[in-house]
Amino acid sequence: MEMTRLEKQIQFIVEVDKLKTVYRRTYLINERRNENTAEHSWHIAVMAMILAEYSNDKIDLGKVLKMALIHDIVEIDAGDTFVYDPKGVLDKAEREREAADRLFNLLPPDQAQEMRALWDEFEARETPEARFAAAMDRLMPQLHNYHTQGGSWKEHGITHDRVVARNRTMEEGAAPLWEWTQRLLEDAVAKGFLTKTRDSS
Amino acid sequence: MEMTRLEKQIQFIVEVDKLKTVYRRTYLINERRNENTAEHSWHIAVMAMILAEYSNDKIDLGKVLKMALIHDIVEIDAGDTFVYDPKGVLDKAEREREAADRLFNLLPPDQAQEMRALWDEFEARETPEARFAAAMDRLMPQLHNYHTQGGSWKEHGITHDRVVARNRTMEEGAAPLWEWTQRLLEDAVAKGFLTKTRDSS
Repeated sequence: MEMTRLEKQIQFIVEVDKLKTVYRRTYLINERRNENTAEHSWHIAVMAMILAEYSNDKIDLGKVLKMALIHDIVEIDAGDTFVYDPKGVLDKAEREREAADRLFNLLPPDQAQEMRALWDEFEARETPEARFAAAMDRLMPQLHNYHTQGGSWKEHGITHDRVVARNRTMEEGAAPLWEWTQRLLEDAVAKGFLTKTRDSS
Repeated sequence: MEMTRLEKQIQFIVEVDKLKTVYRRTYLINERRNENTAEHSWHIAVMAMILAEYSNDKIDLGKVLKMALIHDIVEIDAGDTFVYDPKGVLDKAEREREAADRLFNLLPPDQAQEMRALWDEFEARETPEARFAAAMDRLMPQLHNYHTQGGSWKEHGITHDRVVARNRTMEEGAAPLWEWTQRLLEDAVAKGFLTKTRDSS
């Protein structure tokens, strides 16, 4: 029997509960456990709501919130890829596209298309909304690592130069926040949370 | 030294990380652990995005998403109150107001006011956006309990009549979804996930 429109929508909502069981490398600030991607997505959306005024360009905040909410849903199938893992990053795009094909198509066709378009837009980072949402996604782990005295930086031996190289695209979405983040990272080095370069370790 | 505007905003963003450590009575569908309020808030926002068409009244979805994201932030101080706990519900409003006073005032005054107004609006359930957001908040636990074969209903001996009495306000925000939920609850009884009344248990 064909599923009704509402049944398809509910099926998607139930399926994405799985995002709560995808664990990231970052640690929570107030509990010794890894963060999961659902709570991360919530935090990115809240952050976007609070920091919208720092976007380089005028943005439609409602659209940014939607993007933030679904930007990592593909991790249900593709898993979380550690941004400093060069091997994992290689086939990330392919794995995530396949996941997007499956997951968004649980929805009725019009919504599948809308969600996929939002996700594609986020991935392409070409619109003001996508660039700002991506900046939020880059800023958050710096806060987590700083407030856990080095957290996943220390665990994986990530140095200041790599953090800067990886996250400087934040400037394209929210230049004032990248400026602030650079000072945070310098402070993290000064406090011993982050090593300057591999040689200095 | 006075904190800058951005420092206040970042302080709030870091503080609300604690919502990831507030655990609810509901269980995840795909892992044997209680759900936390941050990931719950994410799920409510995603649900609102997907089910907006069932709202009784025309709604501003961007506003609903903001409400969904912050509706439970007060639980950082006030804890999660089990909806079927008559004692906990007694001083809930008072505890949550105090929490709202502290938490939102970490933000710069204009944003503190904006967030508090959104939260007050959600609590009052008088606008279409608030009624719809509240309906999402009522629907989600039914899905969780159904898909965990009775989950927290069974654990706390909650019967069908209490579930109906507690959640029928869903009708005020999204009547078609309350209709659908009633069928889900009947099915839950038929499958043995939910007891009809205390006498029939």
